[in-house]
Amino acid sequence: MRTSSLDNGRKKSTTNPQEDKVERSHSSHSRGRISVVGIGPGALDEMTFKARQEIENAEVVIGYKTYVKLVESIIKPDAEVFSGIMGKEVERAKAAVAKALENKRVVVISSGDPGVYGMAGLVLEVADLKNASIPIEVIPGVTAATAAAAKLGAPLVSDFAVISLSDLLTPWSLIEKRLHAAAEANFVIVLYNPQSEGRKEPLDKAYRILLQYRTPGTPVGVVKKVGRKGEETTVTTLKEMIGCNVDMATTIIVGNSTTRVVGKRMVTPRGYDL
Amino acid sequence: MRTSSLDNGRKKSTTNPQEDKVERSHSSHSRGRISVVGIGPGALDEMTFKARQEIENAEVVIGYKTYVKLVESIIKPDAEVFSGIMGKEVERAKAAVAKALENKRVVVISSGDPGVYGMAGLVLEVADLKNASIPIEVIPGVTAATAAAAKLGAPLVSDFAVISLSDLLTPWSLIEKRLHAAAEANFVIVLYNPQSEGRKEPLDKAYRILLQYRTPGTPVGVVKKVGRKGEETTVTTLKEMIGCNVDMATTIIVGNSTTRVVGKRMVTPRGYDL
Repeated sequence: MRTSSLDNGRKKSTTNPQEDKVERSHSSHSRGRISVVGIGPGALDEMTFKARQEIENAEVVIGYKTYVKLVESIIKPDAEVFSGIMGKEVERAKAAVAKALENKRVVVISSGDPGVYGMAGLVLEVADLKNASIPIEVIPGVTAATAAAAKLGAPLVSDFAVISLSDLLTPWSLIEKRLHAAAEANFVIVLYNPQSEGRKEPLDKAYRILLQYRTPGTPVGVVKKVGRKGEETTVTTLKEMIGCNVDMATTIIVGNSTTRVVGKRMVTPRGYDL
Repeated sequence: MRTSSLDNGRKKSTTNPQEDKVERSHSSHSRGRISVVGIGPGALDEMTFKARQEIENAEVVIGYKTYVKLVESIIKPDAEVFSGIMGKEVERAKAAVAKALENKRVVVISSGDPGVYGMAGLVLEVADLKNASIPIEVIPGVTAATAAAAKLGAPLVSDFAVISLSDLLTPWSLIEKRLHAAAEANFVIVLYNPQSEGRKEPLDKAYRILLQYRTPGTPVGVVKKVGRKGEETTVTTLKEMIGCNVDMATTIIVGNSTTRVVGKRMVTPRGYDL
């Protein structure tokens, strides 16, 4: 496995794809292709067979460095690996298209499912922008919402809404609107990207909005690093949620008005007559 | 593999668990356990390694007959199999608990993810009702929302809401409220259980609600039998959605105001500057 970096300022340029190459190779017939692969929560046994097969057969693997690390044991020794930092997603998508146009079998990895805040859309958009008619397949994976739910018990089960609290790409006003709407309509709510070291305000704001619609005792599940080393699962209440240890790799599930704690687990009854 | 049925009126009673057995065996020490396993959309290679391992090692496999059929090739030859009809979920959960209390290693299978309109909650609730302190693990799988999304392109990517149009267990007034709320707050909307032979009204009603908030040209993806034989993927518009071939095994994804068709695929831009 040869490793390259797409991080700005520390490019190991030998394998870094050049824009002009993309244009030059586009007119030729390509056997290259891209699979955008969801690796699931992190452990290799929570990945699908198809996802694993794609990674094992890849000539080029591109992903955020933390995710590349999770799968490095199944990457071919001679595969080219581009691992990059958070925030460089566009560069990674461009590199994937460029490499596929160089006739390579490319895998772009996302944690969880590549269609949930993942790389699938970006790769399709970049390929379209470059008029690159290469085959692109999206391989789904277990997303953090259901991986976290499984650890907590069965908090989803009924209708639910998935909301990212990161306002890097979505205006905060829209995130707030969605929190109000989902809370008022009694959806179970799954929060992705709840906070980071330098960004604690969004979770605090979300908490205040949720408290307008749900009682302080509403069950809340907090799962940190689901399926990875250092996993922590906590079933708490809306009132206590704000004191939990939360970072970007945490998924929070806020119950609806019917969610209850069964044993030590969080369950939203589906409505069966028992 | 010995097959039993939990269908009312055609019980093969030799292996059908008896309630009194449950009570008797409860006080003894049990090595029995239950795994509620998500088999993913249907194809064996879209299942996780962990899910497959659980099914391969099960002494008792319980599930809706269509799902049991999808995995029968990996069930141990001497495993006891209870396959049942739709609507008998409570009986299946009770059978699972009873068998675990008889010291069996039990797998309850759900299609997709067992925590999304699946069996996870019901099994936890039934075990609790019976004071059965048996280990219960939930094994997540790829849910229909993301499996269908992958076939369509990348329609989720941003915040989304998952709503079942089945009013068997949820009052229709609440489903309507959720449709209004999700549409108004510009969520991408995933519809599960959109309609069946005898139940066409809900989808028609949902369509009329969605049209109050989204333009008729809004991209809509319709995926029938995702990951199974006879899979059909259609990218259409909200206006044309109602004419599509839709049944209970269909997942519909309604784009938000930014969703567009890229190539022949449905993409909701995440908001990156390209």
